Amino acid sequence: MKNYVVGVDVGGTTVKMGLFDKEGNVLEKWELKTRTENGGENILPDIAKSIQEKLAQKKIDKEEVTGVGLGAPGAIDAEGVVHGAVNLGWGTFSIPDTLSGLLGLPVKAGNDANVAALGEMWKGGGQGCKNLVAVTLGTGVGGGIIVNGAMLTGAIGAGGEIGHIHVEDNEEEACGCKNLGCLEQYASATGVVRLAKRALKTSNQASTLRNIPIEKLSAKAVFDAVKAGDALAVQVAEQFGEYLGKALGVIAGIVNPEIIVIGGGVSKAGEILFDYIRPYFEKTVFSGCKDARLALATLGNDAGIFGAAKLMME
Amino acid sequence: MKNYVVGVDVGGTTVKMGLFDKEGNVLEKWELKTRTENGGENILPDIAKSIQEKLAQKKIDKEEVTGVGLGAPGAIDAEGVVHGAVNLGWGTFSIPDTLSGLLGLPVKAGNDANVAALGEMWKGGGQGCKNLVAVTLGTGVGGGIIVNGAMLTGAIGAGGEIGHIHVEDNEEEACGCKNLGCLEQYASATGVVRLAKRALKTSNQASTLRNIPIEKLSAKAVFDAVKAGDALAVQVAEQFGEYLGKALGVIAGIVNPEIIVIGGGVSKAGEILFDYIRPYFEKTVFSGCKDARLALATLGNDAGIFGAAKLMME
Repeated sequence: MKNYVVGVDVGGTTVKMGLFDKEGNVLEKWELKTRTENGGENILPDIAKSIQEKLAQKKIDKEEVTGVGLGAPGAIDAEGVVHGAVNLGWGTFSIPDTLSGLLGLPVKAGNDANVAALGEMWKGGGQGCKNLVAVTLGTGVGGGIIVNGAMLTGAIGAGGEIGHIHVEDNEEEACGCKNLGCLEQYASATGVVRLAKRALKTSNQASTLRNIPIEKLSAKAVFDAVKAGDALAVQVAEQFGEYLGKALGVIAGIVNPEIIVIGGGVSKAGEILFDYIRPYFEKTVFSGCKDARLALATLGNDAGIFGAAKLMME
Repeated sequence: MKNYVVGVDVGGTTVKMGLFDKEGNVLEKWELKTRTENGGENILPDIAKSIQEKLAQKKIDKEEVTGVGLGAPGAIDAEGVVHGAVNLGWGTFSIPDTLSGLLGLPVKAGNDANVAALGEMWKGGGQGCKNLVAVTLGTGVGGGIIVNGAMLTGAIGAGGEIGHIHVEDNEEEACGCKNLGCLEQYASATGVVRLAKRALKTSNQASTLRNIPIEKLSAKAVFDAVKAGDALAVQVAEQFGEYLGKALGVIAGIVNPEIIVIGGGVSKAGEILFDYIRPYFEKTVFSGCKDARLALATLGNDAGIFGAAKLMME
């Protein structure tokens, strides 16, 4: 009997792992340090060793395990081949072949944002949906898209990279990806802070944000000020909402999702985000796609291990 | 032995049909008038009757036919349920259930643009690819997206409706869909003519386009003038290329296709289109998705029957 699945979420500093039963209950969660030195050569062996130890400790026979699902921050195609993962030091190789060789268990792998989207569909904010867009507003803007129940990986696993869609022609500062005017420059936590700094600099308007040392300005501080009714912060939220709302309208027009779930640090501001996003979304989205619901992600940092487990169960 | 497949492409005035062998060769093509009166109630019975006649005429037994694939201009979901098709008079019902009931053969159905994209992947400009975007620049802008070999239908079959993604904030004239600033308003044949009329009206610049009666101005005339070096026509082509190139960059960033094939009336201008589209595409597309090739569609009006046959073979 296959009663267990392991979900693995590889991050730049930590590997998160979860042991799941076949209904999708987490029986145990644990973490490893991600050893990125020497081209990340230790990462998969460390994971294999840790899984073997965990199974031994729980007295679970390998025969009882369906396999291991894994998400990692890189371009990973539909066969689980990674085409470069800068933060891990990885080049191009097959994750399933390598990890399966070490473990003697079936392995499936995908891009971490796509895998997290699968997790939100399975056990998070998008339960019951088969067509979903997951947006993570963190340091950057990440995205994962689920189409008819499966991850949209694309040619090399760069599907759903919505942080780098072009949304502004009049940008002079380069994005991390070197382009100008990417969504990430306005809708990530860093982007919200950039917008706030610009607003503070280009006007003399009174604002509680002026009481915060500029290097301590955060997206949280901006949305706290929005909630307190600070007019300058509200302007910043309007800009954020216009960029993100229009971009989500475009994405919805292309993908026709049932739901768009928003997670990541910025989403901790809560439902108030939608007050700024929704008007621009509704104004610009194609009528045939306007029924897409906007909702908060609910799994937080666990979306990755849930999605990885689900990927392996497919 | 299943040696045959029928592909059906339902249009607002004509139903195109093709009899295919299992290698995808068209053995015969024929057409019917689309009878849209009375909520389009005759369309599927007419198709069923015509297929039965054709099989009888060719002495093909039903046992030898895999089934019938069908594309139609409406929101058609992954199960072949149409959620409204205005041009045909159709409301909501299952095309496979209805047509299969009439014919006694398996039936699959999809949105015509998505089905045409499948055709271009199978036997047209995108052969060998599994991730493809097909753009049709006709009276409107149609789109179909193939993800890992399958059509991106979305929640209700509105996936790939790229003609109505928002690309311009400063538009005052409404699109057919009632929104303002849709891609279709600038990149369709009608859109190119609009741009040309605006350019002619807002400047006094000499142009061979001024020799054409305004009601006869066409996208073809504009691109003919571009080829002859007409400066005002070149400006129009630049605008067209900027809107379409940036939109394709966004789409590529979301879908990560191997190829984007462009068809429809405007594409008859040929490779010169890419001189105007490509610079804006390359400037704005996410680096991970920049390898998407831009190419002309090759199946013309037959993309629909090819794609429909392929859909049934899946």
